[in-house]
Amino acid sequence: MSWTHALTGAHLINGEWRAAGVAFAQPCSPETGEALPPVVWEAGSAEVEAAYAAASAAFEEVRGLPHHRWADLLEAVAVRLMDLGDALISRAMAETALTEARLVGELARTVTQLRLYADLARSGAWLEPVIDRADQDRKPAPRPDLRRVFRPVGPVAVFGAGNFPFAYGVCGGDTASALACGNPVVAKGHPGHAGVDELCAAAVLRALGDAGLPAGMFGLVQGSGTAVGAAVVEHPACEAVGFTGSLAGGRALFDRAAARPRPIPVFAEMGSVNPIVLLPGAVRERPDAIAAGLCLSVTNGGGQFCTKPGLVFLAAGPDADRFAEALGREMRRVAPTTLLSRSISDNFHRRAVALGGAVGVATLVAGCRHGPCRHGARLFAVRSDVWRANADLHAEAFGPCTLLVLCRDVGDLAATIACLDGQLTGAVFAGSGDADVDVRRVAAILERRAGRLIMNGYPTGVEVCGAIVHGGPYPATTAANSTSVGTLAIRRFVRPVCYQNLPDALLPQALQDANPLGLERIIDGEPTRDPIAR
Amino acid sequence: MSWTHALTGAHLINGEWRAAGVAFAQPCSPETGEALPPVVWEAGSAEVEAAYAAASAAFEEVRGLPHHRWADLLEAVAVRLMDLGDALISRAMAETALTEARLVGELARTVTQLRLYADLARSGAWLEPVIDRADQDRKPAPRPDLRRVFRPVGPVAVFGAGNFPFAYGVCGGDTASALACGNPVVAKGHPGHAGVDELCAAAVLRALGDAGLPAGMFGLVQGSGTAVGAAVVEHPACEAVGFTGSLAGGRALFDRAAARPRPIPVFAEMGSVNPIVLLPGAVRERPDAIAAGLCLSVTNGGGQFCTKPGLVFLAAGPDADRFAEALGREMRRVAPTTLLSRSISDNFHRRAVALGGAVGVATLVAGCRHGPCRHGARLFAVRSDVWRANADLHAEAFGPCTLLVLCRDVGDLAATIACLDGQLTGAVFAGSGDADVDVRRVAAILERRAGRLIMNGYPTGVEVCGAIVHGGPYPATTAANSTSVGTLAIRRFVRPVCYQNLPDALLPQALQDANPLGLERIIDGEPTRDPIAR
Repeated sequence: MSWTHALTGAHLINGEWRAAGVAFAQPCSPETGEALPPVVWEAGSAEVEAAYAAASAAFEEVRGLPHHRWADLLEAVAVRLMDLGDALISRAMAETALTEARLVGELARTVTQLRLYADLARSGAWLEPVIDRADQDRKPAPRPDLRRVFRPVGPVAVFGAGNFPFAYGVCGGDTASALACGNPVVAKGHPGHAGVDELCAAAVLRALGDAGLPAGMFGLVQGSGTAVGAAVVEHPACEAVGFTGSLAGGRALFDRAAARPRPIPVFAEMGSVNPIVLLPGAVRERPDAIAAGLCLSVTNGGGQFCTKPGLVFLAAGPDADRFAEALGREMRRVAPTTLLSRSISDNFHRRAVALGGAVGVATLVAGCRHGPCRHGARLFAVRSDVWRANADLHAEAFGPCTLLVLCRDVGDLAATIACLDGQLTGAVFAGSGDADVDVRRVAAILERRAGRLIMNGYPTGVEVCGAIVHGGPYPATTAANSTSVGTLAIRRFVRPVCYQNLPDALLPQALQDANPLGLERIIDGEPTRDPIAR
Repeated sequence: MSWTHALTGAHLINGEWRAAGVAFAQPCSPETGEALPPVVWEAGSAEVEAAYAAASAAFEEVRGLPHHRWADLLEAVAVRLMDLGDALISRAMAETALTEARLVGELARTVTQLRLYADLARSGAWLEPVIDRADQDRKPAPRPDLRRVFRPVGPVAVFGAGNFPFAYGVCGGDTASALACGNPVVAKGHPGHAGVDELCAAAVLRALGDAGLPAGMFGLVQGSGTAVGAAVVEHPACEAVGFTGSLAGGRALFDRAAARPRPIPVFAEMGSVNPIVLLPGAVRERPDAIAAGLCLSVTNGGGQFCTKPGLVFLAAGPDADRFAEALGREMRRVAPTTLLSRSISDNFHRRAVALGGAVGVATLVAGCRHGPCRHGARLFAVRSDVWRANADLHAEAFGPCTLLVLCRDVGDLAATIACLDGQLTGAVFAGSGDADVDVRRVAAILERRAGRLIMNGYPTGVEVCGAIVHGGPYPATTAANSTSVGTLAIRRFVRPVCYQNLPDALLPQALQDANPLGLERIIDGEPTRDPIAR
């Protein structure tokens, strides 16, 4: 099954590579600054229109297919991706400067994720069939036969992340969860790794062929400007949007989607500062261990994770000083990292300089910019009253840095973290010397503001499983009631439909009397796999 | 348990009736035009602020309570409502001009609905606990213990409907489903039935006392202008909005919620034209029966249902002519109805006159306005090409009228209904003479556009049960992936939270090892009620 794909810089529209658009751009290596051929075309409205036309036609064609077909597709995508192997890894290294080990691990995770959604698709659990049977004798009026199942929404736009070219990219969680329930996808390539995106799109195209599904089910439009993103979100055929990236980018798409004549939901995961709360007992009992773990979580992958801990709250005092020293030692030891792109590097530099220069902020580890994209780790500290008064210090700084917020005591700590915005995660470290009431108080404040609450652990490393939530209140996401990772992510791209008094043959298979798909269904309030005798 | 409440015209804030605000209004009877005392206060920002302050404080107080407490509350609301009995029915008759029989039925339905959500709350099914256990041996890194459960979002704003003072009012489905999962509610009273809303709020207040829950869990602010609605949606403590009403009203709230610094979801159910498709066999085989049923569905309750069939598509010809005659006969027989309010009456009159005067529209039953709020039923007809070209003919006309759209043939019929916007419902009538392929084609087009697909039946009459969907693509609602009726409605007001490596005592009860709530949980992918041995 080995195969190759020679990069074209083109869009993938209805199974064809279309080299056209309104302009083109030359990608370059963040490591060396060298150009990375080929040039990449920037889609205009004609390309976006063509991608949605193909997606809409494909959706009409596949709406009646049984759910296991989507499992077959996702498994085929996983196989095709793995077969691309070295070509994919080496292009990703060139485009993102991420390490080979990291990218090999991310590719494995992406394949695991595709298989998780394949299993979910095959199980049909997301269909959630519910049947309330007719009752001719009910007073004052007979009750009709009512059956409900979840159905795909239609074409979904996917905007992948720069920092995870595979796992949150063109074949990542948004695409996998949208395809898992039978939605066509129109993916917008990320300008930072357009080549990887093209390779991933080529893998999906082959997989569609393997699974005997229409090529229009997946399109890729490339582009770096805001115009192409706007066109993708504003197209009338678009039913929902998945996005991973910056707050500014996600909010802009959300605003456009909400302002459409027919608004559509935007599931934007926009990052977070992922507060860490260190209770006094933990700081006193294990400063070195926490410093080592925290340093790794802050600097691993250049700190370019949406779950990087950007704020660390603790009570001031000698223990805190010892901890800050230990953390500083760890961070000084970290080798400088090349960040994902020139623009991310420039943004990080600007943000780090602003943090270091803000009134009341002390620089504990100064880091340094080594060349255009290479940065050392930085550590800052500030008093809680100063932090509370300066909203600039509450926002995410994407890159290898973190800010210690020194509180007067545990009471001040609780009052300070109550000022936090919505977060993907919140973590509490407690020691044997910490009072249960303090742990509960802090945990309750973080739980109200976060999608994932962590005890004595670090937020980086997002498991792909049923129980995970990678989401949270705004500004972590634009949809606090959803997750972009894990099985629950599929709910973003389905809607419930009810069928009243339909003849059996017209019902979706999941609702037919004989239960031909063998699903567990809720019939008159009771779960069962039994068929129905009408 | 019998009790009474003397109307005050005041807001309910933290358990107290507060007669204050920026102005007051004098409600009047749509039947007689007479004033209905007392005057009703219009809330200003101080009242809205106070209601949310109470709601936020109450939420912090109740976040840890087990789910059965919400079941107890909803059952107490049902009892308190029924005990109000005649006082509630007679005030509703005076304010809305709806008949006693209709209101008695609606109250029974509202109580059934409260009990459905009480059962759901007690079952804990909505918590959906999922546990993925730790795996210390996993490579390349150990897997943490991850547990997920749904949690209440926080204070929910509810804007009830004018046409269902009980079932979609202050104690209606939005309030019941928000309270069922432990969210405080700030309800905005409807100016058309402010007295009913006050009585219902008094019932909730008593029920909170019965259930030993804080009074701040439910607030009522009265008002008729857009300012109070805006203040309710824009308050920083508001986490989600439930709305039932007009497209203009729902969209305005949606736009405000989306433009907030921190956007929140709006679940607005905004009505629909509920297309009915009559295939030629059905029209030929049972014109009189369909005409009788359709007439009832169009005119019952003054046609003031969001599920009223406002468009009827059929192929032109002698059978269609016979059907139109039969329908006209039925509609002429219907007695004039007093509509809900002067503004609804004026709007209906304006819309009916515009429909009758539109180019190419024939008036088959002219109806008539009898006094300020009393209207006869109206029937119009138009050719499909004219209908397609005039978007004004696609919109809902709230009141006792419907529009026949005469198509050239079944092919034209399919192409015509493909121009429909999103709908709450779509219905197909087929006879023995209709080809299976035609039925399937039409059903597929409607299913794509509707929340509920009906075969040989009428859309009015929304069952309260597990399988129902009262929702649909925009403009039927602002959230096509949700329903405002039935058990699934609770999902609007919860969000998933994941707990990583939490000690057992800090976990929500639903996730604790011993399974103290006895819930079915998904543990490592398998459903079970077993406890966990750590």
